[in-house]
Amino acid sequence: MATQQTTTDQFETHVTTLAIDAMGGDKAPFTTIEGVALAHKKHPDVHFKVFGLDSSVVPELKKQGLWGHNKIQFVACSEIISGATEPRLAIRQFKDSSMRRAIQAVADGEADAVVSAGNTGAYMVLSKLLLKTIPGLQRPAITTLLPTKDGKGIVMLDLGANVHVPADVLVQFCIMGQAFAKCVQGIRNPSVALLNIGSEELKGTTVLKEAQSMIQKAGAVENYTGFIEGDDVFNGKVDVIVTDGFTGNVALKTIEGTVKFVAEAMREELKRTWITRLGAFISLSGFKAFKKRLDPRRYNGAQFLGLRGISVKSHGGTDAFGFSCAISVAFDLAKNKVNESLESEIETLQEKLIIAESGAGLD
Amino acid sequence: MATQQTTTDQFETHVTTLAIDAMGGDKAPFTTIEGVALAHKKHPDVHFKVFGLDSSVVPELKKQGLWGHNKIQFVACSEIISGATEPRLAIRQFKDSSMRRAIQAVADGEADAVVSAGNTGAYMVLSKLLLKTIPGLQRPAITTLLPTKDGKGIVMLDLGANVHVPADVLVQFCIMGQAFAKCVQGIRNPSVALLNIGSEELKGTTVLKEAQSMIQKAGAVENYTGFIEGDDVFNGKVDVIVTDGFTGNVALKTIEGTVKFVAEAMREELKRTWITRLGAFISLSGFKAFKKRLDPRRYNGAQFLGLRGISVKSHGGTDAFGFSCAISVAFDLAKNKVNESLESEIETLQEKLIIAESGAGLD
Repeated sequence: MATQQTTTDQFETHVTTLAIDAMGGDKAPFTTIEGVALAHKKHPDVHFKVFGLDSSVVPELKKQGLWGHNKIQFVACSEIISGATEPRLAIRQFKDSSMRRAIQAVADGEADAVVSAGNTGAYMVLSKLLLKTIPGLQRPAITTLLPTKDGKGIVMLDLGANVHVPADVLVQFCIMGQAFAKCVQGIRNPSVALLNIGSEELKGTTVLKEAQSMIQKAGAVENYTGFIEGDDVFNGKVDVIVTDGFTGNVALKTIEGTVKFVAEAMREELKRTWITRLGAFISLSGFKAFKKRLDPRRYNGAQFLGLRGISVKSHGGTDAFGFSCAISVAFDLAKNKVNESLESEIETLQEKLIIAESGAGLD
Repeated sequence: MATQQTTTDQFETHVTTLAIDAMGGDKAPFTTIEGVALAHKKHPDVHFKVFGLDSSVVPELKKQGLWGHNKIQFVACSEIISGATEPRLAIRQFKDSSMRRAIQAVADGEADAVVSAGNTGAYMVLSKLLLKTIPGLQRPAITTLLPTKDGKGIVMLDLGANVHVPADVLVQFCIMGQAFAKCVQGIRNPSVALLNIGSEELKGTTVLKEAQSMIQKAGAVENYTGFIEGDDVFNGKVDVIVTDGFTGNVALKTIEGTVKFVAEAMREELKRTWITRLGAFISLSGFKAFKKRLDPRRYNGAQFLGLRGISVKSHGGTDAFGFSCAISVAFDLAKNKVNESLESEIETLQEKLIIAESGAGLD
């Protein structure tokens, strides 16, 4: 049995502990363990609990020089949830899977956050099941930071957790995004908008109109700016964009596809003649900076925001650097105690909604 | 009265006649009339009927050397539908508006297609009202061609005509997109996919699952390939992508915003040092080709597909070149008789659906 126990005094010294599902993702555990190694270099004080099959993980830990390290604890598990595992099976079976046990570590208070690049559906239902939703919140939402022109980034949710979202849940998503922007980006009074197909009040779905009217009646969101359109995502007009999980997921993937398409079109045109190739070679440093700026790996790591523990999802297809970025997201969220802040914001929201409903808000 | 009548023998010689709303768009009638001038150069045989206020349009026609030209007929109107006009008012009032009269010209058989850069909502309801839906079709959809990696382009609908779309209408949209790809792109057996948040059958909204099951049961779409995700829009995997108008509009605008964002990020990085500026200067021809390839003006012009007349919407903010591209789209659609082909495809669809419903398809 290759379980390697280290003694961590995290509760005395407030050292952050992160639980890592080493078996999730297209090239696990190679990319995940290499990702842990990179994250360990960046955050040398953080403790890692690495969950996985010992036959495949231990050699990787050894290869990365992490085996036996006092900050790295390996926990052997006997099962793997694959990309093909149905979420409902992930709940009923696979009790000793690396994914489940990593989440359980957060539920048990043994870790401050969990990171997995595995099956999104399974990871979400297990996170919901084991971590539970924050009291007062109806549903968690996949939340992430996207790059913007001005470099400060924009918070977007929901990116795929909820296909059908009623108006009151959209209002909660606004509060959740607001708390995220405050904690992670340090924005004092983040502006929040609902994604729609026109900024006019008349446009859009009935659910969106209802949500906007709820927000406006109750003054539910501190700095609500109204509807926003898809072409405003990157221009820094607002700090938080809220939408349902279907639309958000389509938008996110469309962004990914468009970035790839534009970059490839440029590469092709610059390769066409020797003179364009020469020019491109001379401005190589500029292209490198451009590539770095839009590198999707740097924006890897989305949170299931709204749960009582921090659960971060990495892209399954990312590499070690991308996985280490998702680990950094988990670290930031844990350090800034996003959930504590969210709990208090949700309480305030509920008060406001009750006041608005009782008509007292109209006095 | 500045109405200028020309005699056109269009029906004897099958010359295409296009009705132009000269008053729609941010910089109308300057951009629209200059756009007509550009389109006239490109399509010297086409007849144009230009609708607008004589006080503002006539000077522009004179400036462009189109006044008194035997291919250009000016029709004076007394009203304008502005961007702020509510669609329902556009129906009840504004009977002598340039937009309404241009559409009416198609309804009356005096023109083969109409082009406007004006108020989308008003243009759509008026087009529906005056042109009527093709028998058997429930609703028109905004349809356009987007660029792809392989250069052949992809048909996408609905881009904003219908916010809520039931399953049977999505199936009709598939047929409509298929007819569009056949007629405009000349693809013999175009592949069609539904936009979803995962290619697995279990994922997505109930409406999408229902639509897919209807298509599969009835064999309703010749070359249906299943669900597709947002990052597949540009890679040429399929010829037609079908979605509801809310999702389609968000995706389209997100694409626009992303292209702009990526291009600006690159410009910034290449301007940073003298050496990157030098390199960029040397490869200028490559950048020009890149810019031309992704020029949104070249993809301007979306059709309200499913109506008994061809009604093409130009971006309101485009310039003369962009408007001339929308005119070219109208010309192509008229020349290739997209509506005749669509009518026969819809008849076949209805037969297939009836057979499938009656269970005869199971034998």
